Amino acid sequence: MKLATLNHGGRDGTLVVVNRALTRCCTVGHIAATLQAALDNWHDCAPQLHVVYEQLNAGTAANMQPFDQHQCASPLPRAYQWADGSAYINHVELVRKARGAELPASFHTDPLMYQGGSDRFIGPRDEVVAAESWGIDFEAEVAVVTGDVALGASVDDCARAIRLVMLVNDVSLRNLIPNELAKGFGFFQSKPASAFSPVAVTPDELGSAWHDSKLHLPLTVALNGTVFGQPNAGVDMTFNFAQLVAHVAKTRELGAGSIIGSGTVSNKQGDLWGSSVENGGVGYCCLAEVRMYETIEQGQPRTAFMKHGDRVHIEMFDAAGHSIFGAIDNTVRAIPG
Amino acid sequence: MKLATLNHGGRDGTLVVVNRALTRCCTVGHIAATLQAALDNWHDCAPQLHVVYEQLNAGTAANMQPFDQHQCASPLPRAYQWADGSAYINHVELVRKARGAELPASFHTDPLMYQGGSDRFIGPRDEVVAAESWGIDFEAEVAVVTGDVALGASVDDCARAIRLVMLVNDVSLRNLIPNELAKGFGFFQSKPASAFSPVAVTPDELGSAWHDSKLHLPLTVALNGTVFGQPNAGVDMTFNFAQLVAHVAKTRELGAGSIIGSGTVSNKQGDLWGSSVENGGVGYCCLAEVRMYETIEQGQPRTAFMKHGDRVHIEMFDAAGHSIFGAIDNTVRAIPG
Repeated sequence: MKLATLNHGGRDGTLVVVNRALTRCCTVGHIAATLQAALDNWHDCAPQLHVVYEQLNAGTAANMQPFDQHQCASPLPRAYQWADGSAYINHVELVRKARGAELPASFHTDPLMYQGGSDRFIGPRDEVVAAESWGIDFEAEVAVVTGDVALGASVDDCARAIRLVMLVNDVSLRNLIPNELAKGFGFFQSKPASAFSPVAVTPDELGSAWHDSKLHLPLTVALNGTVFGQPNAGVDMTFNFAQLVAHVAKTRELGAGSIIGSGTVSNKQGDLWGSSVENGGVGYCCLAEVRMYETIEQGQPRTAFMKHGDRVHIEMFDAAGHSIFGAIDNTVRAIPG
Repeated sequence: MKLATLNHGGRDGTLVVVNRALTRCCTVGHIAATLQAALDNWHDCAPQLHVVYEQLNAGTAANMQPFDQHQCASPLPRAYQWADGSAYINHVELVRKARGAELPASFHTDPLMYQGGSDRFIGPRDEVVAAESWGIDFEAEVAVVTGDVALGASVDDCARAIRLVMLVNDVSLRNLIPNELAKGFGFFQSKPASAFSPVAVTPDELGSAWHDSKLHLPLTVALNGTVFGQPNAGVDMTFNFAQLVAHVAKTRELGAGSIIGSGTVSNKQGDLWGSSVENGGVGYCCLAEVRMYETIEQGQPRTAFMKHGDRVHIEMFDAAGHSIFGAIDNTVRAIPG
């Protein structure tokens, strides 16, 4: 089934069930007022929400209303956890290659992951407010939302704890990263609020595209209206989502509603460390990768980071060409005043 | 006023107002069912909660019940943000000194901070469940809870956004830290769930001990019943809480209920980088510091990390000797099975 959160009704918005075609929705306050409430009590709520989903698809649901992605907050407008992996090792290898460093062997067995801020996400169509001098970049990713997970849970148990799948624009401030990582404690100011897709879907909704705890479909990224990347999120993913969740669970429990991200989707494309769409490749899911590629090939980056007014569009389509999650579409603007 | 959360009534527990002496409390469901709900609507709720607080202190409140710290969850059993600074530079300097590294000059002007997990905190009297081989340590700290803070907020605005003050045991798994920091993305598995004091208090409750956005009182730490540290949290704090909150707000808004920690409280005590209680000093707020001191003095650490069954007690007393926040008291135990 498909779920979304309308951006009214309080800090956590209003949960709606959305039909498969993303044209109609229903509020479900009698089942759960918010997505977090549904996740807190998933075993009771999910079957009831699924009944509404089937009625919506059949056109028989009571109180149907048009679904407008522009009225959506992120599915969880705020969350108790947002932890983002770097499961596509090509992305990490490319970043290292550009500075002449080798990839440690352990990176193929021990996931990289950072703890992100989750107290306030921007909405799927909201503006990214930041200074250009910070080096504004997008990162197109896939993310899952978990139920409760026990400390030390097995990879299989973690696979079963995946409740929902969605897309994310993990906004990154590249020019703040070097100093921040040099301090040794990881990202902080360099990772402002992320934006998630309007719609989150249960794994069963993805059919055969969801297997081995990976989403095997191209992720489409457009920059100012031109396709910039369309790598397959199921290709070159070194750690699947169940493994990423198990990494979190090694030393602690996870609470229901934890969001775990894949890191920037990146396909290696032979020995190229990626190739742009205009060169016949699948392109990139962030500006940093093309800049790294340029640095390796030409000694320095040529592509600029995002300017105020620039717009990134992130969407995924099923085999029949239908949008699965709706679209993230963020324009960058200056800090007011 | 003083607020706490009883560990029943759901994942977010039940908000109670507690009297100054920590002997009586009242549920306040007619004002706010949970602490997060009160923080979400603080301007309306705080004055009403304060009326109950005054009635509790006068012994005239309706529905008073005995207050039992053992029935408390952390004031926010789960939170939308937990970010922890390293405001006591002596702690950072000592860690560096032990490995022969200099403290970068920027560390005196640019706070170190990491994003912690906040989806599930343990309670103030809960057990810390971890493997001894992970190198289990406590870190006694002070933390504040904020209201909403705008992107780019001034230090003065951040000072005014501090709603509550509490204590925290930021549990650390020292043997997991070196590998994790070497990966470059900061702490993750090495920082399992933290425990907060049973009671959170408004800054006005601290009287003259709260000024310059610092808490000027000794923080008492006992290990297995013996005093291990009693440094003054107002001394050698390079960045005050308003500055720490402003650091978070540089590139993003903060949502109400964000918890910002001080980092391990640490007094320099002249040129000693700390001195133990048995040597006549104010002692330490974590085992790592005494191990660093031993490494500097004797070439290697002598003090072991916590063993299963070990117990840490963290509390702060006012000038008259009364406990302000109640006690954190965590015993370490093995992972079951």
